[in-house]
Amino acid sequence: MADDLETSAKRQKTEQIFRVTVKAPINIAVIKYWGKRDEELILPLNSSLSATINLDELCTTTTVVARRDNPQDSLWINKREQPIAESPRIQKCISKVRQLAKENSPERWQELRNYGLCIYSKNNFPTAAGLASSASGYACLVLALSKLYHLDMELSSIARQGSGSACRSMYGGFVKWEAGCRPDGTDSIASQIVDEKHWSTLRILILVINDERKANPSTSGMRRSTETSELLQFRAQKCVPKRMENITKAIKERDFHTFAEITMKDSNQLHAVCQDTYPPITPPYMNSTSHLVVQLVTAYNNNHGNNKVAYTFDAGPNSVLFTQEGDLPELVALIKHFFPPASGKSFVQGIPIPDSGIEKGLLNAIGMDPNPSSIKYVISTKVGRGPILINDNKDHLLDATGNPFE
Amino acid sequence: MADDLETSAKRQKTEQIFRVTVKAPINIAVIKYWGKRDEELILPLNSSLSATINLDELCTTTTVVARRDNPQDSLWINKREQPIAESPRIQKCISKVRQLAKENSPERWQELRNYGLCIYSKNNFPTAAGLASSASGYACLVLALSKLYHLDMELSSIARQGSGSACRSMYGGFVKWEAGCRPDGTDSIASQIVDEKHWSTLRILILVINDERKANPSTSGMRRSTETSELLQFRAQKCVPKRMENITKAIKERDFHTFAEITMKDSNQLHAVCQDTYPPITPPYMNSTSHLVVQLVTAYNNNHGNNKVAYTFDAGPNSVLFTQEGDLPELVALIKHFFPPASGKSFVQGIPIPDSGIEKGLLNAIGMDPNPSSIKYVISTKVGRGPILINDNKDHLLDATGNPFE
Repeated sequence: MADDLETSAKRQKTEQIFRVTVKAPINIAVIKYWGKRDEELILPLNSSLSATINLDELCTTTTVVARRDNPQDSLWINKREQPIAESPRIQKCISKVRQLAKENSPERWQELRNYGLCIYSKNNFPTAAGLASSASGYACLVLALSKLYHLDMELSSIARQGSGSACRSMYGGFVKWEAGCRPDGTDSIASQIVDEKHWSTLRILILVINDERKANPSTSGMRRSTETSELLQFRAQKCVPKRMENITKAIKERDFHTFAEITMKDSNQLHAVCQDTYPPITPPYMNSTSHLVVQLVTAYNNNHGNNKVAYTFDAGPNSVLFTQEGDLPELVALIKHFFPPASGKSFVQGIPIPDSGIEKGLLNAIGMDPNPSSIKYVISTKVGRGPILINDNKDHLLDATGNPFE
Repeated sequence: MADDLETSAKRQKTEQIFRVTVKAPINIAVIKYWGKRDEELILPLNSSLSATINLDELCTTTTVVARRDNPQDSLWINKREQPIAESPRIQKCISKVRQLAKENSPERWQELRNYGLCIYSKNNFPTAAGLASSASGYACLVLALSKLYHLDMELSSIARQGSGSACRSMYGGFVKWEAGCRPDGTDSIASQIVDEKHWSTLRILILVINDERKANPSTSGMRRSTETSELLQFRAQKCVPKRMENITKAIKERDFHTFAEITMKDSNQLHAVCQDTYPPITPPYMNSTSHLVVQLVTAYNNNHGNNKVAYTFDAGPNSVLFTQEGDLPELVALIKHFFPPASGKSFVQGIPIPDSGIEKGLLNAIGMDPNPSSIKYVISTKVGRGPILINDNKDHLLDATGNPFE
């Protein structure tokens, strides 16, 4: 059973619970974050905007337990205990929350002063899928800690300091992260544009792409782009502000064609900036299958005369597609046709999609050859709510003394 | 036997020859031309700079015959007769040269006034290799016509109107094409920076890459970039002018490290702009093998601590590498190791290169898997001279009456 954060927070305050579990969503940027103006505070060169992904399909769950008997903090991620000293960003988030508690919730801070924290975090999706989990991970951690310390305030700027895009996972629906301009970063915060119910016909497919190449970390690529790409500076200053304004309008008006155009243009521009980085980011984030997905979407939209689908790519080969409910069956049929799976079993996971045929004329118009086994599987999902607090005892990941259940 | 153009021109004037044969080189841009400010006159958004490629390895040969008995113009390209009405740019070049002749060489113009032109043009490399031949083709045509009409003047602005980069094929060595700013394009001309003897240790490898994808014409891609890429406008105005200045200095000083860095950065930026184009250019010009070549060169330079090799890519997957003579044997050994040919026979064509081993430590440092058969063959070449006039009878492609020999 899950409560909204506020209701639960009130209840917890009276119950004096020392164990908190939170589920937080991943988010997919349609206006991309790439480049920092401050590495230490994680302040971005430009504002960005994302869709929060439905928790049922993809989320991180984190349980935090405060234990009296041991003042040491400890950490498990996906079943493995990890020395917390090796995770400076997690330590930073913990100490920022403790600092806030000291100032804003001094009684509770005093009470927990000598307690150690046990933190257990896990994702409901395989790490190997290459779906970024740091956003949901840090959002989860910061919210769980804030509930433990009875904090009720803007926390996205703390999540941001764990992983930039984590600040956008603090809310549901469509969320913007303002670049801000203050050197201390206090104006670089996330906020909701519309909630998850606003555009209910919008649907999302995540194409998990087979990639045998060594993965390429985004942090170093982003740093090198900031240092060497002149195009990135121009993008951040001149291109993104207009796009933020126009895509916000398109989302509010549920104007899919415009939303799709800006989404695709901004994904293109992120990868253009990566291509402009020197020395180059090798291998490039998008692989040959990614480019075939672009080709399929371009040909499909072109054949239709306006945008039925939008693609977007982050620092890896996986593709995220946005479309509208009515167009989903045909789109999935096209994906199955041009990227036939190695085995039909559970190729499409998540929200069920009705079968559909494809007109032969459409296949000819797209004019691509099928590329078997290049897409591992597809996750069918939608825009979802923000993080939730878990009250059901069986959903905690740690027992009351801080020992993992699994 | 070949003369320099000037000597031959004097001789021809007295001999009143009605048949002219010219060989012209291709060129490889290190500062790229991408985007037109005037589609009709072919005026570029930015200046560009190229290396002229040695004629022995790659060139176009064109014979032009003026025949009295038939006023029709006719055209053969690579053994096939083509209706000249279907080649508006060739017609345009012919009529521009005739116009110049009327103004500057009126006697000769009057003499040839009722003559038809037979034009035969062929490349010494397979069209299927994907090496752009329009530059050498138009340079050849314009020069052959100018000799026929006894013109002795700046002609790169006419070649430019056949194919933009053709103006750079009018000279040897390193050549710049000034963007110019006049609306009539009279200041958008090519000129030599240094001749082919200036940097004699510089060597060039052209990697002809296997590509099963449908080729993507550069003209439409360039037009779409001009119309839709905001990054292209910034590149043309802000990035290229500095690069032109710096690479010219590096070439004059034979500073390979800097030359290589600017060359690679500008190739990266061309493909960044293509990636920023909307709708996207599909498939992208660079394929997965192209990106592996980038990866190899990056790892090799990185291992060495400064640049031993530079890559550059145009509107296709083929890679052109610049290096210095002393580093060539090891580089070729690396290429053979990481891109082993389907058959060893004539994998490396052109200027012979001594065999070399590779230290095991270097292979490990590069850390890539071999990719068999992804490179078809390699052309070993260097910077070469400009176009030449052919005087040997056996080298003409048409007999004196305009009939093809083959």
